[in-house]
Parts: sequence; C-alpha cells; structure tokens
Amino acid sequence: MTIKAGIVGYGNLGQAVEYLINALDDFELFGIFSRRDSLDTDAAVYPVAEVQKYKDDIDVMFLCIGSATDIPKQATGFAEHFTTVDTYDNHAKVAEHYAAMDSTARANDNVAVVCTGWDPGVFSMNRVLGLALFPEPVQNTFWGKGLSQGHSDAVRRVDGVKRGVQYTIPAQDAIDQARAGNGKGLSKVQSHKRIVYIVADEADHERIREEIVSMPDYFEPYDTTVHFVSDEEFDRDHQGAPHGGHVITTGNLQGHQANIEFSLALESNPNFTAAAMVAFGRAAARLKQQGNTGAYTVLEVPLYLLSPQSLDELMATEI
Amino acid sequence: MTIKAGIVGYGNLGQAVEYLINALDDFELFGIFSRRDSLDTDAAVYPVAEVQKYKDDIDVMFLCIGSATDIPKQATGFAEHFTTVDTYDNHAKVAEHYAAMDSTARANDNVAVVCTGWDPGVFSMNRVLGLALFPEPVQNTFWGKGLSQGHSDAVRRVDGVKRGVQYTIPAQDAIDQARAGNGKGLSKVQSHKRIVYIVADEADHERIREEIVSMPDYFEPYDTTVHFVSDEEFDRDHQGAPHGGHVITTGNLQGHQANIEFSLALESNPNFTAAAMVAFGRAAARLKQQGNTGAYTVLEVPLYLLSPQSLDELMATEI
Repeated sequence: MTIKAGIVGYGNLGQAVEYLINALDDFELFGIFSRRDSLDTDAAVYPVAEVQKYKDDIDVMFLCIGSATDIPKQATGFAEHFTTVDTYDNHAKVAEHYAAMDSTARANDNVAVVCTGWDPGVFSMNRVLGLALFPEPVQNTFWGKGLSQGHSDAVRRVDGVKRGVQYTIPAQDAIDQARAGNGKGLSKVQSHKRIVYIVADEADHERIREEIVSMPDYFEPYDTTVHFVSDEEFDRDHQGAPHGGHVITTGNLQGHQANIEFSLALESNPNFTAAAMVAFGRAAARLKQQGNTGAYTVLEVPLYLLSPQSLDELMATEI
Repeated sequence: MTIKAGIVGYGNLGQAVEYLINALDDFELFGIFSRRDSLDTDAAVYPVAEVQKYKDDIDVMFLCIGSATDIPKQATGFAEHFTTVDTYDNHAKVAEHYAAMDSTARANDNVAVVCTGWDPGVFSMNRVLGLALFPEPVQNTFWGKGLSQGHSDAVRRVDGVKRGVQYTIPAQDAIDQARAGNGKGLSKVQSHKRIVYIVADEADHERIREEIVSMPDYFEPYDTTVHFVSDEEFDRDHQGAPHGGHVITTGNLQGHQANIEFSLALESNPNFTAAAMVAFGRAAARLKQQGNTGAYTVLEVPLYLLSPQSLDELMATEI
C-alpha cells in the first residue's frame, strides 16, 4: 500500500517531513495545509480551513504545528477527520493530550499516534525497555550536545548581547558514573553543563558573563561556560541545531553488571524529529488499515509497524 | 496481577530466570520442570513428562531448553498447554519456528513469544527501529567483547591446548567508520577481531598459535591474536561469560547526519538473556490475558507490555 500523506504546518518540522515523504517509496504526498496562501514548495497547498474536504484523500495527517499552544487547541479538530501523528512534547501533559486524542479519534474511527519524535519518542521507548529488564534498574537520561532554544533566547535578552546560542552538554563524569552503575540520584544539574557562545562588544564581556552565569534557574545552578566569539566564528560554527543524548540503564544480575545504552547524535534536531514522526506516521496508517482506532503512545506501537518492510521480510533479515 | 511462572530446563538460563522470578514483585514461581529427579533449588520441582497436569496453574512457561535441538523438537508440545516464551536463536530458522509456534498456540488459545534475548531480541528491535527512520539507512551490528562458545571449543580441540577461551571483539576502526556514516559494505570479518587465551606447555606455543590462526572459517579470515597465560591468570581472568555489542545506524537527512547507537555491555551473557526473556514472559502473560493468541516476535510486542508498570504510570513518568 502507498500511504497518502497530508502535512499541516510548514515550519522546520513540516518541511523536513515533506522531504522524507518525497524521499520514501511507500509514501505519496497529497498536499500541505497552511493558513498562508503561498508556500515555497512544489507540493499542492490547500487552505487549512478547508481540510475536511479532503478527509477521504489522506491516510495520515502529519500535525507539524506548534507543541506549546497549537496542538492542545487544534489537534483534536484534525483527529475528527483524519488519522494523525504529532510530536507533542510537553512531558507533563502527555496523559491529558492522549485522553483527548483517544476519545476524538475513537469516536471517528481514526487512529492518533501521539508524542512521537525523540524525547518524547525513541528515548521514551528506550527508557521503558531498560527499566523493564532488571529487578532494580538504575537509569539516567543525558541530553546533548544540543542547542537549547529556551536558554538561547534567555541569553539573547541580556543587555549588550548581539548574537548568542546555548548548548547543553552532558557532564562526562556523570556519564562515567552512570555507565559504572553509580547513576542513582544524579540530578539533572549534576549531569549537564551549559556552554554559551556570544557576540558582544569587548567592554561588555565581563558584565554579560556575570549576568548569564548568575541567572536563576536557567544558569545559576549549572556549570556554565561563556565564550565570546567574532561574527565570523558565529556564522561558521553556530548556525545548526544539533542535539542528542544518552539513555543509560544498568542492572545487577546475580553480581553481574549489565549496561544498556541508547545514544543519539543529531546534526539537526528538527530533521530527526521529522524522521521519527514519519516512521510513526507509517505505523498510524497501518494501525488504521488493520481496523484499530483511538490514540497510541510510542509504547503501544509494535516496532514492525514502523518499518517499510513487511513482518515476513524483517523475520528473514533482521531478527 | 501476579504472573504465575513455570520454568522448563535448569541450566544456566533456567537458573537465571528462577533468580529473576523470585526477585520481581509481579511474578510468582510455580515450579521447575525437569527430567532430573532432584535439582539444587528451593523451588518445587516436577517431572517434565507430567507438565500438562499443571496447565491451569501457570500463566507463562519459560522454555529454558537448548536452542539447537530441544526447541525445534519440544517447543510446540509446550505451546499446546501453556503460554510460552523462548530464546530460540537460530537466525536462519526464525520464520519456521514462528510458523510452528503460531499454529499450535493459536489452536490452543495460547500465546507464544519467540526468539527473545538480545540477538535475536533487543538487538533485532533496535535494528528494525534504526532502519525504519531513514530513506537510506546504513546499519552495522558489532558483537563483543564476547566469549564465543563455538570458537572456544574449536581452540580446545587443538593438540596440546590444556585450557582455552576465545573472545570476539569489534574492530575499533570499523566502529569509527560506522559512526561516521561510512559503514556500508563493512564485512563481519573486517568488523571483528578474535582474541584467544590459552594454557599450554611452552614448547607447543608456536605450533598451537599457527594452527589456530590458520584454522579455516573459524580464524583464518580474521585478525586473530593468541595469548598464552598461566593457570592462575586463566582462573582469575577467564571464568566469566561476557558479551555485548553495538547496533549503529546512520542516516543522512537533507545533508544533516543522524547517528543512532544501541549498546550492550554484559558481564554475563546468560543472565542478560534471562532478563530479556523474563520481560517478554511478562508481555506474553499480558497478551494472553488481553485475549490474544498465537506467536509473537519481539517486533510485534508493544513495549509497555514489557514493563511492570502500567501504561498510565509510564505515561506519567517515562514519556
């Protein structure tokens, strides 16, 4: 079956999903739904207000809209008419989002796969796998090296900062402790450092550094390093959106240690989020085709449904 | 629900499963089924010939019998009476085993989760996950550092070898290439080295080394290193059964590289195999309780079923 895909929203995520849909043999792009009249794309573009006209043309709708406010307000509206997949990432409200999508999708015979991406997403899957394997598992999640949008914004609000980015990086000594089975009780603050790159006039450097490292909550509790760089260095080294991290789980099995580690190193955070979203979009279309309805977390989707290959093919080559 | 477990077979694997069942709150051990009259255990022991008497007392039967000959001959017999989980590891015959277990389990309203452990098992899961994420994924599996039973046996058959073990280790340059996205076409031979530790009379060292490194198939194509050690060193350093490895997948997303790596480092291969088997045993009991029947590979089992926590709890803490 070729899966007919629609995309709502055309920011970084929507554009990355479009690229993947076009690159993959088992998908076909029906079109992009947007509030804007014209987009810089070769795909068909439709007004999002008329989306329900196309409910029979689309197997899965990729909700590439903002997680902070758009998803909570708009996602159930799409689940009325379409099988959907989203990257909702507010960890504290996963259950609320799931419940809302489940009742709407179920009432309309659709499937809604929620909170895909990498965290939540494939990191969540590896946390649950790791924790399931041992009587007393010890588990740590480390994030980075990664660009943090919120912390970069905070840095840029400091007076005199012309350009600025913030990267979160895992503390190597904390990673080493986790791998050695001693990760229990390591806090997020102990486990991560913050590195800031700033373009600013030299006269302001010391004051800016001081304001950043003492900023409560954002930087004050962390080991924070501030580097001042030239415009040229900033252009060359700090335009990307890298991210990644590690989920490390250890267990003691009758005196024998077992270490499990899942790591991501991503040159582009939104591109990889899109890649995970598209795999779960494939699963959403198949779950619906199998006659299922309602919401699914990434923990409920059997892995073979993510693959473009059939279960028989996977049994022959990957098991 | 407390899951009532039975164990067939009491070798390394069965003993490790017994330990886990006793250590986990959501399991209860009904007993161990063996051809032997007495076992060194506090658990109830029953003759395996009378196993079907107990079909209503057991939620899941752990088939801790040999993969080479016992599983193909005996597994369907257990699937007639019980929901089962096994660690069948003959990659070439997974589909055949699955088909046999599926028809027997289905005909008797049981569930059979097949080919659990780590490879096949959690490595298979991570291969399928990695391959599902990119239009043109590049993936390599590396095994080791690990004790290889077959190669250790081959070494011990060489004349003059008093004691011997063989470890497979991944070649670091091959791992580096895989991580850099250049793993395509790397062969198993290029990706692994073999290290052998031998106790032998000094007069035999050179001949033994030569016989080993030139042994066709087993060693000849590989980068093989032979170390001669004393009895004391052998006792101290070479009594364990370590294993592990890496599944490395890279993808190119519009010019941005993404790396996914799943790693295991296990001090005891059979203990970790048992840990994975027990998690899938939990899933088998739940699948049956949900009203499902038939065989499941690890690719078909939703991850939340592996966890002792409920889906609601996992949504609140791990997604």
